[in-house]
Amino acid sequence: MEKLRKIGFSKLTSLEDALAKLFSRLTLNDLEEIETQDALNRVLGENVISEMNIPPFDRSAMDGYAVIAEDTFGASPKNTKKIKLIGTIEIGETSNLILNHGEGIRISTGAPIPIGANVVIKIEDTEIENNEISLYTALAPRRNISYAGEDINQGTQILNRGTVLKPEHIALLSSLGFVKIKVSIKPKVSVFASGDELIEPGNVIEPGKIYNSNTPMISNLVKIYGGIVVRGETVKDDKDVIKKKVIEASNDSQVLIFTGGTSVGTKDYLPEIIHETGDVLVHGIAMRPGSPVLIGVLNETFIFCLPGTPVAAYVCFLQIVGPTLKKILGCTTLDPRTKVLANLKKDVPVSSLGFLHHLRVKLEIKENQIIANPVKLKGSGVISSLTESDGIVEILPHLEGLKKEEKVFVKLFPK
Amino acid sequence: MEKLRKIGFSKLTSLEDALAKLFSRLTLNDLEEIETQDALNRVLGENVISEMNIPPFDRSAMDGYAVIAEDTFGASPKNTKKIKLIGTIEIGETSNLILNHGEGIRISTGAPIPIGANVVIKIEDTEIENNEISLYTALAPRRNISYAGEDINQGTQILNRGTVLKPEHIALLSSLGFVKIKVSIKPKVSVFASGDELIEPGNVIEPGKIYNSNTPMISNLVKIYGGIVVRGETVKDDKDVIKKKVIEASNDSQVLIFTGGTSVGTKDYLPEIIHETGDVLVHGIAMRPGSPVLIGVLNETFIFCLPGTPVAAYVCFLQIVGPTLKKILGCTTLDPRTKVLANLKKDVPVSSLGFLHHLRVKLEIKENQIIANPVKLKGSGVISSLTESDGIVEILPHLEGLKKEEKVFVKLFPK
Repeated sequence: MEKLRKIGFSKLTSLEDALAKLFSRLTLNDLEEIETQDALNRVLGENVISEMNIPPFDRSAMDGYAVIAEDTFGASPKNTKKIKLIGTIEIGETSNLILNHGEGIRISTGAPIPIGANVVIKIEDTEIENNEISLYTALAPRRNISYAGEDINQGTQILNRGTVLKPEHIALLSSLGFVKIKVSIKPKVSVFASGDELIEPGNVIEPGKIYNSNTPMISNLVKIYGGIVVRGETVKDDKDVIKKKVIEASNDSQVLIFTGGTSVGTKDYLPEIIHETGDVLVHGIAMRPGSPVLIGVLNETFIFCLPGTPVAAYVCFLQIVGPTLKKILGCTTLDPRTKVLANLKKDVPVSSLGFLHHLRVKLEIKENQIIANPVKLKGSGVISSLTESDGIVEILPHLEGLKKEEKVFVKLFPK
Repeated sequence: MEKLRKIGFSKLTSLEDALAKLFSRLTLNDLEEIETQDALNRVLGENVISEMNIPPFDRSAMDGYAVIAEDTFGASPKNTKKIKLIGTIEIGETSNLILNHGEGIRISTGAPIPIGANVVIKIEDTEIENNEISLYTALAPRRNISYAGEDINQGTQILNRGTVLKPEHIALLSSLGFVKIKVSIKPKVSVFASGDELIEPGNVIEPGKIYNSNTPMISNLVKIYGGIVVRGETVKDDKDVIKKKVIEASNDSQVLIFTGGTSVGTKDYLPEIIHETGDVLVHGIAMRPGSPVLIGVLNETFIFCLPGTPVAAYVCFLQIVGPTLKKILGCTTLDPRTKVLANLKKDVPVSSLGFLHHLRVKLEIKENQIIANPVKLKGSGVISSLTESDGIVEILPHLEGLKKEEKVFVKLFPK
């Protein structure tokens, strides 16, 4: 029974080294083509180059009259200039009208500028009577006109491969006529919680048991990070059962995530199983919480064995598994969390040098400052320390702690 | 034709007053019960009270031996104390063993503490030979034990109605055995872009026309804000067509969003139509971009007519439509955007007092500071000014602008 400890982690790897080792083994997912409008949160699979100008033509930025700027020179409410209305161009229309000096054309916002005009005078700055337009203001040439290509020139690279698509990107792609785009195929992920103590919510709790919260937590994190959950199960602490699951899931999933069973306890079978079936890349990372984490590979499938305590599992996901999914997807940003600069509310000592510590904090806004208030906690099993926090401050391994009033970057929980 | 201008906005309402007027008319959506694990980004419909303790029982926080603290007193590597192993408690098991002085029980992380024990000594701080355990360290009572209710006491309100559920909330609910929860039903939303100049992406562009980008942009914003898009269409600038759409969509949607056709141009039919069929609550808000916005109501359906220029439509959505959806859903936070404190990179004057201005900025991190760099822009039609920015700084109506180095809050684009 005690022999299991012999394959436990005697030396801890730094998070940086662990990720470097892991990332050197990852390959990019293939692409699929989908409708642009359905691409929210998908990862762009190719650089996109504009095939057209935006705006596609010189157009009016105002409701008013297309005129020749020189005809407005000297105009003021007390000294109006008068020109003749020769036609109208509505939005969506084109016109063959050619404008000459002393003439104006009624034009709507977005309508194409007629030949000859070099300025649009706002309707509010004019008055009209019997086709005679009085101009109340003088305008320099080019005012109130959006010129072709002013926003985007044909041939410009407008979006980079690896961009996570948000409404504004979808708008940009649509405005350029891209009805379909190529995105990375979502990685398939199997999520397991191992432990004889686990009961699925919905069943009656028994003495000594707890409800499994890791599978739903991790599965939803996978969704946020762009993966697709193909399996979410609880497994008993039985070596044969776990081994069967590892082999079965590695046939249809690119990533396997286990919580629990990864440490050096008597029933922590996972390190042994990965050693027997595949390769252990890393076992034991110098971070708290989360040090017992194991990263393995079986054929093309990456296996992450995270600690069973929910906060440790959560932190390991954010630091290791999430960035792995992003890397597979080809994302330019592997850690999508927003960073907020804040003032630390109190001293935070750390108990042991050499570990990357993760401090949960709650943010407060006070007198134009953002304050990071460390959340008191009792252990890495305490899920409420997550729901009561906004994010995490990392305390680097060489630091003995952080000082009150120190400026810290808070990485907000992913949304 | 010019008569339309008469029902245009002569007086602009402040954004604050407009929202107050609108919100006083809104009612909360009904609730539906769904599986907790499927509740990502849904809005919790009820306060949740824990029906159990977390942890449910006193449990070990370490792999080690459950002992009596007093038996460890004085122990050190040079002066080990010795006790007798009387049994093992694995995780998920219960035990009838009663611990007396001079005895220890092997215990796994998460396993229930046996009667009599008041501390767990880590396995690393012990050695075992022939059922005799040598203790290397002294521990104060209660060390390495998570006591029942330490995280959450039975009867505690753990989550509030109106919380948008993230993985950590789903974990918390699951750990308390909630397999189903009540959430607000998603509001049904119809999205229309009006304009004769609009062509759907996928078709060949014609002279004077542009591709419609507002429908996909707004539809995806609706998804982020928790609504469900039941209709996304382009409509021609034809009063009868638009009127028919308004009436048809108001029968199955709680919210209608139009872009375009809301100003005082010759083809801006929407104000007239809303006047004829329902009530105009607000027309014209003192904000830039976005001043021509119209808010109306037809029976129980709220109608938002946003400007047709994409940036203006985007800003109006974030400031008005998004918070409306959140309000209908019963969210505690109506504006979900993350606020980041940053230093403004340069002076920003505003051209006209009395308007709430929206400044797009790009964030840079430099020497432990976050810098907000205003994005140069030419007009509110320029979608790339959104894709090149990270968020918006609001310049309050009474300000003449912002100063270089000033601390500003940046509201990040919703994700």
